Amino acid sequence: MFNYFYLFSNKLSLPSIIKNMSFTVRNAVEEDMQSVLDLITELAVFEKEPDAVNITVNDLINDGFSENPKFKLFVAEQENNIIGIALFYERYSTWKGRSIHLEDLIVTKTKQKIGAGKALYSAVLKYAYDNNYNRVAWEVIDWNTNAIDFYKSTGATYLNDWSVVQMNKENLAKFVENN
Amino acid sequence: MFNYFYLFSNKLSLPSIIKNMSFTVRNAVEEDMQSVLDLITELAVFEKEPDAVNITVNDLINDGFSENPKFKLFVAEQENNIIGIALFYERYSTWKGRSIHLEDLIVTKTKQKIGAGKALYSAVLKYAYDNNYNRVAWEVIDWNTNAIDFYKSTGATYLNDWSVVQMNKENLAKFVENN
Repeated sequence: MFNYFYLFSNKLSLPSIIKNMSFTVRNAVEEDMQSVLDLITELAVFEKEPDAVNITVNDLINDGFSENPKFKLFVAEQENNIIGIALFYERYSTWKGRSIHLEDLIVTKTKQKIGAGKALYSAVLKYAYDNNYNRVAWEVIDWNTNAIDFYKSTGATYLNDWSVVQMNKENLAKFVENN
Repeated sequence: MFNYFYLFSNKLSLPSIIKNMSFTVRNAVEEDMQSVLDLITELAVFEKEPDAVNITVNDLINDGFSENPKFKLFVAEQENNIIGIALFYERYSTWKGRSIHLEDLIVTKTKQKIGAGKALYSAVLKYAYDNNYNRVAWEVIDWNTNAIDFYKSTGATYLNDWSVVQMNKENLAKFVENN
């Protein structure tokens, strides 16, 4: 499906202390999905919504590795441990056309100073560039100012006036059954 | 690909004056794409970004009606005129799984009081419900309070603290070429 592989510890000019903690960024495989779910859950706890994760390992396997995968996924690996993920997929802008949505960029708390987040982020942007997408978009929560500052420093635009609206499955059913 | 068709003027209990202006909601076909682009452009002007629309009629045809369509599209039609559109596609939530993103919901200015917006919105929600999606999401600009109030009245949640971040094609190229 996609065969992108990147050894970031060579690509980036990292200080020697970081080189000793080198990691690789690679495509996810089915066997990674338990570790991926652990990271998704860790982020939900950080975002104060620990009970919001309804997805299972089997869902991730079925949805990501079937004939028509619903997402693409890069993982950052260090000494056989998955320390970070970037999950993304196609969207379609009526202004710009084919675009990429970065759904989740997660690095486990104890490994957040070794460049894995930037490496995963860069990998997604490089994927979008190499595949001629016209935009990359994502969402950020307003109190995560470190993330916002980082995104801006890379050339992204923070659209503070555009916010997210969601209808959950329960309210979707209510609406459809009553309309 | 999808064969959803809905005659809303029967489904909704509209006052008789509105019944006389009845419209239908149907799947878009290739021949609608010029009218669709006109509505996309009309919305961009309303949002004060008239030059932001880079997409062409051919892009819409190629991207929406090829073997692997990038979006689904309902149109509201009245007396052979396309008066509104709802363009949407799949996304993937790492909390909820398969979801629908409503990219654009547009009704032309002169036809905004006859229920076409709600009919298109309802059609997308019904599509999501019928196809067992776990969430429907979209984005709204904060000064469009009429839209926000409407969305809330239907059971949607306005996540004021979650905002959009985008990297355009030019800055994407700059970032990738320098990293």
